[in-house]
Amino acid sequence: MSRETLLWYDKPNGHVWTDALPLGNGWLGAMVFGGGRDERVALNDDTLYADHPMHRFNPDAYETLQKVRALLNEGRLSEAKRLAQAGMNAIPRYTGPYQQLCDLFIRENNKSTAKYANFRRELRLEDALARVEYDVDGAHVTREYFVSAPKGALVINIRTDRPAGLDFFINLQRRPFDPGTHPLGQDALVMDGRAGDNGAEYVCMVAADCAGGRVEPLGDTLHVSGGAEATIYVTSDTSYRHRNPQAQCAARLDALRGSAYEDLRVEHIADHRRFFDRVSLDLNTPDMSAVTTDRRLASVADGGADDGLIELMFNFGRYLLIACSRPGSECANLQGIWCEGFTPPWESIYTININIEMNYWPAEVCGLPELTQPLFDKIEKMRPSGRQAAREMYHARGFVAHHNVNLWGDCAPTGMDVYMWPFGAAWMSLAIWEHYLFTGDEAFIRDWGYDVLKEATLFFADHLVEDENGYLITGLTQSPENSYVHPSGDIESICRTCTMDDAILHALFKAYLGAQRVAGRDEDFAGQVGEMAGKLRPYRVGSKGQLLEWEQEYEEVEPGHRHMSHLFPVHPGNDITPAGQPELAEACRQSIRLRLANGGGHTGWSRAWLTLIVARLWDADQAGENIRALIAHSTYNNLFDRHPPFQIDGNFGGTAAIAEMLLQSHDGVIRLLPAAGSGFPDGEFTGLKARGGFTVSAAWKNGQVTRYAVTGQPGRKGRLWVNGEMIEFEGSCAG
Amino acid sequence: MSRETLLWYDKPNGHVWTDALPLGNGWLGAMVFGGGRDERVALNDDTLYADHPMHRFNPDAYETLQKVRALLNEGRLSEAKRLAQAGMNAIPRYTGPYQQLCDLFIRENNKSTAKYANFRRELRLEDALARVEYDVDGAHVTREYFVSAPKGALVINIRTDRPAGLDFFINLQRRPFDPGTHPLGQDALVMDGRAGDNGAEYVCMVAADCAGGRVEPLGDTLHVSGGAEATIYVTSDTSYRHRNPQAQCAARLDALRGSAYEDLRVEHIADHRRFFDRVSLDLNTPDMSAVTTDRRLASVADGGADDGLIELMFNFGRYLLIACSRPGSECANLQGIWCEGFTPPWESIYTININIEMNYWPAEVCGLPELTQPLFDKIEKMRPSGRQAAREMYHARGFVAHHNVNLWGDCAPTGMDVYMWPFGAAWMSLAIWEHYLFTGDEAFIRDWGYDVLKEATLFFADHLVEDENGYLITGLTQSPENSYVHPSGDIESICRTCTMDDAILHALFKAYLGAQRVAGRDEDFAGQVGEMAGKLRPYRVGSKGQLLEWEQEYEEVEPGHRHMSHLFPVHPGNDITPAGQPELAEACRQSIRLRLANGGGHTGWSRAWLTLIVARLWDADQAGENIRALIAHSTYNNLFDRHPPFQIDGNFGGTAAIAEMLLQSHDGVIRLLPAAGSGFPDGEFTGLKARGGFTVSAAWKNGQVTRYAVTGQPGRKGRLWVNGEMIEFEGSCAG
Repeated sequence: MSRETLLWYDKPNGHVWTDALPLGNGWLGAMVFGGGRDERVALNDDTLYADHPMHRFNPDAYETLQKVRALLNEGRLSEAKRLAQAGMNAIPRYTGPYQQLCDLFIRENNKSTAKYANFRRELRLEDALARVEYDVDGAHVTREYFVSAPKGALVINIRTDRPAGLDFFINLQRRPFDPGTHPLGQDALVMDGRAGDNGAEYVCMVAADCAGGRVEPLGDTLHVSGGAEATIYVTSDTSYRHRNPQAQCAARLDALRGSAYEDLRVEHIADHRRFFDRVSLDLNTPDMSAVTTDRRLASVADGGADDGLIELMFNFGRYLLIACSRPGSECANLQGIWCEGFTPPWESIYTININIEMNYWPAEVCGLPELTQPLFDKIEKMRPSGRQAAREMYHARGFVAHHNVNLWGDCAPTGMDVYMWPFGAAWMSLAIWEHYLFTGDEAFIRDWGYDVLKEATLFFADHLVEDENGYLITGLTQSPENSYVHPSGDIESICRTCTMDDAILHALFKAYLGAQRVAGRDEDFAGQVGEMAGKLRPYRVGSKGQLLEWEQEYEEVEPGHRHMSHLFPVHPGNDITPAGQPELAEACRQSIRLRLANGGGHTGWSRAWLTLIVARLWDADQAGENIRALIAHSTYNNLFDRHPPFQIDGNFGGTAAIAEMLLQSHDGVIRLLPAAGSGFPDGEFTGLKARGGFTVSAAWKNGQVTRYAVTGQPGRKGRLWVNGEMIEFEGSCAG
Repeated sequence: MSRETLLWYDKPNGHVWTDALPLGNGWLGAMVFGGGRDERVALNDDTLYADHPMHRFNPDAYETLQKVRALLNEGRLSEAKRLAQAGMNAIPRYTGPYQQLCDLFIRENNKSTAKYANFRRELRLEDALARVEYDVDGAHVTREYFVSAPKGALVINIRTDRPAGLDFFINLQRRPFDPGTHPLGQDALVMDGRAGDNGAEYVCMVAADCAGGRVEPLGDTLHVSGGAEATIYVTSDTSYRHRNPQAQCAARLDALRGSAYEDLRVEHIADHRRFFDRVSLDLNTPDMSAVTTDRRLASVADGGADDGLIELMFNFGRYLLIACSRPGSECANLQGIWCEGFTPPWESIYTININIEMNYWPAEVCGLPELTQPLFDKIEKMRPSGRQAAREMYHARGFVAHHNVNLWGDCAPTGMDVYMWPFGAAWMSLAIWEHYLFTGDEAFIRDWGYDVLKEATLFFADHLVEDENGYLITGLTQSPENSYVHPSGDIESICRTCTMDDAILHALFKAYLGAQRVAGRDEDFAGQVGEMAGKLRPYRVGSKGQLLEWEQEYEEVEPGHRHMSHLFPVHPGNDITPAGQPELAEACRQSIRLRLANGGGHTGWSRAWLTLIVARLWDADQAGENIRALIAHSTYNNLFDRHPPFQIDGNFGGTAAIAEMLLQSHDGVIRLLPAAGSGFPDGEFTGLKARGGFTVSAAWKNGQVTRYAVTGQPGRKGRLWVNGEMIEFEGSCAG
């Protein structure tokens, strides 16, 4: 078992979001500030957006596309960009933000402003439980928090060792868009409002139980006093999820009232451990449990060594995925379900030119395949809008999305500038094929996945055009968010084609053809796809030995750019592997060197992606360096990833990267410790998954595997690379 | 005439709010970013709040008040505070924010990303006109911007010296709450939405005229091309102001289409100069017109001398008041009409425990008395809610407000913590009496002002209670936003009484009694008020020689606190003057010394207030030092005041402070250069106003007045203090 599952601190936290501790049950998120006598718990409901479905396709898009492609062919890039901005972007250009639900405040009716002693706050990853405790005015106070998936509610238990010593007020607030609250009977409060004009209706309810004491409304609060133990229940719902969100909330509170706290706690922990205990990691690091998490982070930021934090980050990413992505919940957005405020960065929606895909990278390898269901639900929601985008903007079949989608899967090209990148649906859909590779679930492909991959592919069958050399290109695209110096001297971002286009098309066509073999349909179309795959531009190496990012070798505006788009063929794609394409793999290594030499990896998710790429290039030292840099330079006190600001993709990417150092299976071989080496000399993991449906455990010392077990379906053939040797096996093998 | 009326810069500004240049006609505000080929103009409409009228009075307030007063008498302060928070605060505790209307973008359809030459952007205070100009790709481009009060619209004129060389796109955006736009005919766009759930409906329309060229919709833009000159018109309206805001906007655009730009410009400048030219200031400073404004500010921040910035700040404050407060517009809030975004600091509403009052401090002395009309309109809006607050919360007659009001004048005690300060209505109402003192407008008092002052006073007649010594106190109050160490060791902010209570009550009773003499009504009540005035606690001096802030001498938690509440008797009150109460004046000097020795004056408005106080204490050196510190340390590149963040009160307080150094009239004497002395050795001003209806001009050299003119109504007696001599005169005098 992993020992590194505890985040703890010895000081109260008043206001800092990234010092607060996240809890969640998939759809209901809570941030426990741990403020002592004045406590704030910020709440999220994953369906609460100040947004509504719209038709946002630019009516001039198709006509403009023809003009833009022509201008690009003539090298008139600035004009092409301006025209695309005006004639192709969505109307309105942005959709509404994801928003915090509200804040719950718990305020002791303290008799003095005395200082705390023995203050401690913590998050226990293995139990999905937060705690705050302190001594003040001669009493010991404990608060324990969890968000129960079975009960659909945040549960807070408060105890004091002073007999009948509880005395506090609770209230809900949604400043500055606060609809107010009203009492519901004697023991509950209701907040009921609408998130902006035409936004979702939301309801938040809180109830309090105080055995041996009193609960009574005062003003907008519940005043709890008298007993020595109280339990608070908080739940929410929205009109997006249910027609009558009030009734849903009321029913959940009714089911909770009078429960024994211990029963709820036991049920919750068992539910969480179903997921959390599937995997363990032990890197044989020193016991650091006496040092607070913030001090450990400060120490590594100062150059200290503390690889226990790697274990902790690995477990924290798994914890977060369990907490924010459960079957039936929404897909994790840029901040999971831990968004502060009402106008979050990038609206805290779904940026799908890397970020949302990254959120799900740890799911399969960490044995949490059912937690990808919200991602697939999101793809399904995108299909009607994506078809409309294909039809109206491109006069094409299939479905297409650009770099952003919202709650409803709106596929119009969001943005003020130019985001003419038609690969959102394609990249998202690749998760379908990965899920199949890991789980072997053929029904998933036959019943649904094949159709999606076909539609994603169909779009390109209609949309791609031949360039002068007969290669298939989109004729209008971007290497996401990056820009280059055109030979004219202009700085531009749009282009006719770029390396990521080819890489995603390769991956999509491979996935489609794989799914087609499973589904056994559409032979003709499969033939056409095979032909298209043969007409994609080859990967090219530039004058510095690097893999080229664009059609030509341009001067780069920002050579340390955060996106590694052109290295997609290494990860998440698998076109380039050190064993299969050693020259191209070396070019990718050189691209990474150039990025890093120019300040690359400065955002958390970028560092995580970079780590995954070097892990796949089997550079153990660099992988170790980068994962440590992620923790040292891109991690907040509560272990949230720093973009900056907080963005959750780096947490998930970081967990995936640690797994990728320990185990790889993307090239038909199960590889043990492909990039652990000097990074993690000793250790042990259990429960990781390899493509082909295998479960893998291993222990190692001085970089040499000392024990391993690979368990698969009887008769399933596999190849295992361990300690430099290749082993062929059937079903399972161990050593 | 003042020469310091120009703000200018030689670099484009992309994104920084406090580098953008403000324009306004009272209700329509614009921030011109000056971004070159990609221009952003952020718009405000002064009635656009994501808010709606509510009944927010806590139903438990009156009962809780009794308990809280009793707890205060027992010294149980922490409990009193917690109880007041729960049982007296408004529900919801905060109201909705003031919000930006939207952004207008103007984007050149540039053929290249070539760099600018000869870039210049500027704001001309005397013309209320902004300009951007630059050379690029061989053409010279000029954009000129003003917000016309007569026409109710932002007007932007764009020219190029390349024949038929204009080619740009314009669009409106309101990210992240963007309802989108649609074309209105061929030459206009409409944005039409609602600010949040139950918020105001808003409309923004933009139209473009391009003689000799074309205007045509493309996507969500207007594409303007062909001519060498184009004019853009932008206007807005809301459902708060008009039942059919669309029709209002359309009518304004219709009236503007086809106008000659030069005619609009001439009309606008004449309209603005009616106000701006009433006053001038010349401090005989060196000509700095060759240095950009941002460099001048950087130089004084580095310790350099540049007193021309004092003239510029003085004129900028007058400019801002003319731009954001016209008869018929809303009262200037915390950011005037230059609010960025949708969740601004403190909701950008009306904080009336100093800030909004400060906004209007320069109005009377700078000869802009009609610009206070929005303040009086705000008071009138507060009366119904203030009466309800008095009745429901306090079982009292009259009207009362706490430290915040919103667009509708909601008088419930806003805030999460405790804001039990019942002096908002009283302080606001004092502006009525000041207006009378400056203008002598008896009808204003008889027809309206008297009734307001009476209602404000009536509240205290019912609410005040006697303490153990027979003094009248509120029994529950705060020295705004400040806290102290109670003898129990607890840090608290609420209290039974404090010095500011007494000071505002003194000022209110004096104003009421003055107004009563004008109105000639309610002799009995006047007698009662006279008696109450005699039962107020005297001002007290503490162990350090300072004026005490609270009932007792407490240890101060933050001795450099930004609020100078206990010095209200010096300014804006007049209970303590150096001539009349020399010992108390010395105690006030000591209080200022203690604030400054502990880091006081760190917010812009705080520094401005402090400057006003030392000016009234006739400390010319300190006044000069502080006004220079305000500019050096609390001023952004666009001269906006820094709280931080931007808050407009410090701009108005700064202008008032400069005037107060030059001219005072609060103690029955017109004083020339009471606190200019070494600060401003030479100079000249014209057009300032003194109480009694006098217009005052003066010139001086080496601190000695060399020429002056005081002009009043024939027969009106006055006393003038000049060069150390007291002159009695009738009507006018000069020397």
